[in-house]
Amino acid sequence: MKFNIALLAGDGIGPEVINEAVKVSDAIAKKFNHEINWTPALTGACAIDAVGVPYPDETHEICMAADAVLFGAIGHPKYDNDPSAPVRPEQGLLLMRKKLGLFANVRPTFTFPSLIDNSPLKRERIEGTDLIFLRELTGGIYFGEKGRKDDGETAFDTCTYTRAEVKRLAKKGFELAMTRSKKLCCVDKANVLETSRLWRETVQAMEKEYPEVTVSYEFVDAVAMRLVQWPNSYDVLITENLFGDILTDEASVISGSMGLMPSASVGEHTSLYEPIHGSYPQATGLNIANPLATVLSAAMMFEDAFGLKEEAEAIRAVVNKSLEQRIVTEDLAEKDAKAYKTSEVGDWLVANL
Amino acid sequence: MKFNIALLAGDGIGPEVINEAVKVSDAIAKKFNHEINWTPALTGACAIDAVGVPYPDETHEICMAADAVLFGAIGHPKYDNDPSAPVRPEQGLLLMRKKLGLFANVRPTFTFPSLIDNSPLKRERIEGTDLIFLRELTGGIYFGEKGRKDDGETAFDTCTYTRAEVKRLAKKGFELAMTRSKKLCCVDKANVLETSRLWRETVQAMEKEYPEVTVSYEFVDAVAMRLVQWPNSYDVLITENLFGDILTDEASVISGSMGLMPSASVGEHTSLYEPIHGSYPQATGLNIANPLATVLSAAMMFEDAFGLKEEAEAIRAVVNKSLEQRIVTEDLAEKDAKAYKTSEVGDWLVANL
Ligand SMILES: CC(C)[C@H](C(=O)O)[C@@H](O)C(=O)O
Ligand SMILES: CC(C)[C@H](C(=O)O)[C@@H](O)C(=O)O
Repeated sequence: MKFNIALLAGDGIGPEVINEAVKVSDAIAKKFNHEINWTPALTGACAIDAVGVPYPDETHEICMAADAVLFGAIGHPKYDNDPSAPVRPEQGLLLMRKKLGLFANVRPTFTFPSLIDNSPLKRERIEGTDLIFLRELTGGIYFGEKGRKDDGETAFDTCTYTRAEVKRLAKKGFELAMTRSKKLCCVDKANVLETSRLWRETVQAMEKEYPEVTVSYEFVDAVAMRLVQWPNSYDVLITENLFGDILTDEASVISGSMGLMPSASVGEHTSLYEPIHGSYPQATGLNIANPLATVLSAAMMFEDAFGLKEEAEAIRAVVNKSLEQRIVTEDLAEKDAKAYKTSEVGDWLVANL
Repeated sequence: MKFNIALLAGDGIGPEVINEAVKVSDAIAKKFNHEINWTPALTGACAIDAVGVPYPDETHEICMAADAVLFGAIGHPKYDNDPSAPVRPEQGLLLMRKKLGLFANVRPTFTFPSLIDNSPLKRERIEGTDLIFLRELTGGIYFGEKGRKDDGETAFDTCTYTRAEVKRLAKKGFELAMTRSKKLCCVDKANVLETSRLWRETVQAMEKEYPEVTVSYEFVDAVAMRLVQWPNSYDVLITENLFGDILTDEASVISGSMGLMPSASVGEHTSLYEPIHGSYPQATGLNIANPLATVLSAAMMFEDAFGLKEEAEAIRAVVNKSLEQRIVTEDLAEKDAKAYKTSEVGDWLVANL
């Protein structure tokens, strides 16, 4: 098979981790007789520097024309202290999500047996955790009307959802639950918010179409607790944009392997695959960042975007092997053990595929 | 001294835990020569059952006339499956907060040396944790305009904040920080929300009035992570209503002593003290609920509402002693050890004051 992949390396360590994912993807393609055509494009702070906007039209066209997008990370410290700067890298992210119609962010949290002791949680709490959040990504308070009144003394943000928006996200949740343990948790704040009540009634009405799926409804504050207490009690969770932002990040650290967690954003057009970590500016250019989350994002891309399960499994297997043999970057290296460079980890993966 | 305390026992285990806090408070009052006059009043599901509304006017008048309010818990399972029922216990809670002007919810999270191994976190992660959230409690998306449009197909909620609302909460945060390690963290989502940008600019403008306080600004998703990773890196945190709801609950479980965490809500009129746990309906009437969070809430009341530090310390000391000697309810009892009843724990505290 032949694929066109848009390559959005972004800022900070983005280019370095993307580089390793490309190496591994190319090696897999060669092994399984596929051909990948990579098209690099600008996004984030580097796009602002080059052309003045964080998600240029040209980048959007490249993404729309591609079979998948592989994304690194964006963000630069020069924008950190001024969240109201007129042009910011994150705006590129939000614009990209909206224009590509990426309404569902798929965020798994799972454990690696060899890394379980890296978790801040005790072993018996985290063992067996394997959950997936579906976060709604193009609606809610992120995209509602916002602004100031009363000479700037009053600020407001509006959270809006339509039944159709909830339905398409929930549908993905039900379908995903059917491929797993048939447990779905709808996370909301229906005791306070009208949008949450719409979420809940919409999901409740869909239950009869999926009689095998057991649906639970939990308040966002309760989920924030149980994720720390008994993360392994969850399987598939669906939630709106802002709750998803908070809870998926909370979930990402419980496994102790945040540098390893991949993600996908899917929707109306091309799907996008990216590590969940940020641009880690302090490490830029040092060849020390952990490339595994990006490599595992490429695995998700092979499986979900191209339907190539065997290729995906081959990538996951070699990643597991590297972890077992501790061919790892400094974030995972044991005390007094050798820390491998970003590119060395990539080389090892390619050599051991 | 002489105090009038409004006693809002509420639902579920509320009356049982309140009962023990009253016993301990009365014993302390006797010992230190104070006189407490308790005035019980209805709130929550029991108020709906009795008079049709969850926060009756009569209850409000009793609270307004009191020197402090001691609150149990509210909520009943018969309202759980229908968050859009016309009258619900939580509405009473929100109305009470609004009418009493309780704009600052004070939520400490700390550890008890004798209980540290109850935490879901590893010892080295949780040890030394002693943080306090100040959650804004009468504004934001909880109280903004909400409703439906397009024949019910679109729902919306509005988050609104004024500079004055942010200021009065932040002022409490700066003042609290001055009495502690002079570290203040402002939690927002200023990279996305206009209300967060108002929060941030308001707090930034106040920094010069408190030159000794070091202020950090962190995004809510980052805080959700760091609370699990390094909770002991935080001291005083301030945040808006909804973020506070989620993060304080997350913070409450990391210590492994949720059944022990007290809280206060302070503002324009009478202050209110309550355990952070819920009404725990399954345990109602069984005399098994842990009364210590309510007892420690009474200690906060003695210290903060009445300025009686010695009395508060005496309560905390006897609670610590009970924990060390494992005079504890079943939630804290060790395997094969005796679990004391709610009332037995209260009796023991009174006898050992
Ligand atoms: C950078 C920010 C706008 C973004 C979000 O809030 O969605 C990030 O936190 C994420 O989760 O991808
Ligand atoms: C019951 C609910 C309305 C309430 C809230 O969201 O404020 C509760 O979760 C709390 O934190 O006191």
